[in-house]
Amino acid sequence: MTKVFDAELAELKEKLLFMGGLVQNMIRLSIKSLVERNEYMETEVFFNENEVNALQIEIDDRCLKLIALNQPAGIDLRFITSAMKINSELERIGDQAINIAEASKELLKSPQLKKLIDIPFMADIAKLMVKHCLDSFVRKDAGLAREVLAMDNQVDGLKEQIFRELLTYMISETKYIPVALELILISRHLERIGDHATNIAEDVIFMVQGEDVRHHRFP
Amino acid sequence: MTKVFDAELAELKEKLLFMGGLVQNMIRLSIKSLVERNEYMETEVFFNENEVNALQIEIDDRCLKLIALNQPAGIDLRFITSAMKINSELERIGDQAINIAEASKELLKSPQLKKLIDIPFMADIAKLMVKHCLDSFVRKDAGLAREVLAMDNQVDGLKEQIFRELLTYMISETKYIPVALELILISRHLERIGDHATNIAEDVIFMVQGEDVRHHRFP
Repeated sequence: MTKVFDAELAELKEKLLFMGGLVQNMIRLSIKSLVERNEYMETEVFFNENEVNALQIEIDDRCLKLIALNQPAGIDLRFITSAMKINSELERIGDQAINIAEASKELLKSPQLKKLIDIPFMADIAKLMVKHCLDSFVRKDAGLAREVLAMDNQVDGLKEQIFRELLTYMISETKYIPVALELILISRHLERIGDHATNIAEDVIFMVQGEDVRHHRFP
Repeated sequence: MTKVFDAELAELKEKLLFMGGLVQNMIRLSIKSLVERNEYMETEVFFNENEVNALQIEIDDRCLKLIALNQPAGIDLRFITSAMKINSELERIGDQAINIAEASKELLKSPQLKKLIDIPFMADIAKLMVKHCLDSFVRKDAGLAREVLAMDNQVDGLKEQIFRELLTYMISETKYIPVALELILISRHLERIGDHATNIAEDVIFMVQGEDVRHHRFP
């Protein structure tokens, strides 16, 4: 492939990393707004979403042009089609951050149930998963991608723990139900962020090693 | 493009339609198992999932080969990259049906809360959305794809209605909380099925008309 093509692939990577930075910021802000009960930060999340949406369209367009004009095969083609998938996953991660920001806004109407510990912890792991899966993609590092799969188990464990704790609150006092329910749904949004990062990581492993981990054919 | 290429595109369509049939069946069975409290049907859902997973890998592989060997551009290239996206969406719809089947199994441990009406109704719409979005893809019918977008609003309305009703149950009697909570989560899985179908429909509109509806730039 030509130098121009290589430069274009490098630019594609940069765009995806930039978009990844934006969605990580959206996760951080949406959880900060929840923990600090700060409506201003939610506005920031919505602001970032516009940029993410514009990037999604731009990246998709770049990928199609790269294929049509350069007719790549093998690892180059897989890299570009992976970029298209990652692009969709990132946009959906942004959507989940929006869902969290909206739920946080809703929660401002009620007094705080408890000091939140597990949810911010779960969010930190989910955010790191997003970072790692993108790094694994640009470095073609299957080892790092495998770490993301392991982190997803941690996220699922936290989801269960949060569910059980909040269920106890709901059963102890009826008045806690609406708030506890909203917090459970927030933990589900975080779980989905972990799932999207896992999808990316699985695709990276496939791209690098030709192994299909999407349906856990190996331990 | 060659006749062989056209035949391969037709085969790709058929594979996607077949996979779509499988996931529609998974939705139907998972909800039937919930309504009829029948564990046997859940097993069927898990059985279908294996086939869906195998198809996902096969279709992805076909698409990559089609691009690498035929170097298509324009609408043909967009059709194949859309097929790759649709393939992922269908697999995730299957995952949601699995989530519903698992929740239904869990619910067998508790007595029934109420006769379920809105959830099966919501499932019917979601299933029809999957059918329509696939039909719109193979026929390149943007009008039908737009109908899917309209149906998604209906699904979201039902989700809200189900949430409010079940919240009332939870508040009325503490013992209803675990079951009502599980039903709320099932309605969220159905909502996500609707979202996946919407993603497909938006991609079809983009493929056919070159319009980007993914971020609702027009009414």
